[in-house]
Amino acid sequence: MAEVVSIIGLNRIGLVKPHDDVSQLIIDAARADQIEFMNHDVIVVSQKIVSKADGRLVDISTIRPSNRAKSIAKRTNKDARVIELILRDSKEIIRADRVALVVRTRNGFVCLNAGLDKSNVQGQTVYARLPNNPDKSAAIIKAKIEKSTGKEVAVIIADTYSRPNRVGQVEYTIGLAGLEPIIDYRGQADIFGYCLHYKYVALADEIAAAAELVMGQGNEQIPAAIIRGLTRMQPTNSPGLSKKLLLGKKRDIFYSIT
Amino acid sequence: MAEVVSIIGLNRIGLVKPHDDVSQLIIDAARADQIEFMNHDVIVVSQKIVSKADGRLVDISTIRPSNRAKSIAKRTNKDARVIELILRDSKEIIRADRVALVVRTRNGFVCLNAGLDKSNVQGQTVYARLPNNPDKSAAIIKAKIEKSTGKEVAVIIADTYSRPNRVGQVEYTIGLAGLEPIIDYRGQADIFGYCLHYKYVALADEIAAAAELVMGQGNEQIPAAIIRGLTRMQPTNSPGLSKKLLLGKKRDIFYSIT
Repeated sequence: MAEVVSIIGLNRIGLVKPHDDVSQLIIDAARADQIEFMNHDVIVVSQKIVSKADGRLVDISTIRPSNRAKSIAKRTNKDARVIELILRDSKEIIRADRVALVVRTRNGFVCLNAGLDKSNVQGQTVYARLPNNPDKSAAIIKAKIEKSTGKEVAVIIADTYSRPNRVGQVEYTIGLAGLEPIIDYRGQADIFGYCLHYKYVALADEIAAAAELVMGQGNEQIPAAIIRGLTRMQPTNSPGLSKKLLLGKKRDIFYSIT
Repeated sequence: MAEVVSIIGLNRIGLVKPHDDVSQLIIDAARADQIEFMNHDVIVVSQKIVSKADGRLVDISTIRPSNRAKSIAKRTNKDARVIELILRDSKEIIRADRVALVVRTRNGFVCLNAGLDKSNVQGQTVYARLPNNPDKSAAIIKAKIEKSTGKEVAVIIADTYSRPNRVGQVEYTIGLAGLEPIIDYRGQADIFGYCLHYKYVALADEIAAAAELVMGQGNEQIPAAIIRGLTRMQPTNSPGLSKKLLLGKKRDIFYSIT
């Protein structure tokens, strides 16, 4: 029998407003399509709707930029108020020029503009910041869905990621609850009994990428998906799981690329 | 109605030997599980079985390392014959020390050890090199499956990729035929009519990552999967599609990271 994993798009969530309850929207959207949750379903939710629900929309017309933000705004040719918001969510600036503003966020992600994003946000001057604590947001959504459905699920919050070395963006995991983000094959035998030394798979990032095959990026309005039938996932109740996906400079073998 | 994409693992392919016909093995494995191919199925095949079928297994006991290989072997503390094979498949060495050997392959991929790999290869001294021309290998598999089944499919050859910035590996695309690897949303409107400036999605890499949710990495022996129900794919007959995923240094916004 073939092993099958299904990616089920939830397209009845509709527009999410500040302080909406994302878990309830997901439960209702599944019900509207007669989808029953099952144990070990992984629910992937787009960062954008979590940011909205978490009250992370900011109108930049309310922002007074610092002198540092003004200086970086000049260097990068961006709006100083936008830079101010990016700085508030960053702990390190990695590149700042007219080509790109690459930072390490307070949560440790190396990404463009600290994830600050204008797309699919209403209002000319309104931007969405990343959730303040994406693992916690994921844990809250997980707990509410479990309480309502009686099923044990996992939740991944996915965002769009521009990568080194490769053209185009992929979805990746910024927060998760309920599953180990990494599968460690090291020390296991391959099909010829050879010990695997390097296989250490970023399962959570692969799930986030898979979800986008139904979620899309434009006006599709499919901001969540259920990944069903994943036999390889390892449930866990540990908090702060996204930290396991963060590679500091010292351990990063690509860091000597210049 | 929910949009559903299915990832179907083909677990009856068995062991692949040098010069086996991968397309026939895939057709037979699908038939054994009573899976009929459908138009627009994307078939993801692991690099390892394509390398085997393409005759890219090499016994390093037959290799005489060059002086350059010997010198790099010393710096990296690796077998000079292994280095020799890596050099033959590389056009640029990016990092070579005891931590890692990162190269740009002749086909343009930035990766560890030019993709040379020992896992799931029989024989203590036998290694698998990447396919010589992965796009061409994908095109051949595609053509044979289409001829045999009468369906229009796409083929992606996926390999394991250690990434900058993030812990763990993900599958990515080293060769493909039959679908555009990138979806370009730039210039399209979002749900509020805001023009998307940056969305440029590496669909092929997301499909490769999704396939691993059933394929695994150890001794699961599921070296191929069918991705079915993908509404966003754009068929094409262009050759050399993997080039569209390659980001040279000049365009790589992360390249100033040091």
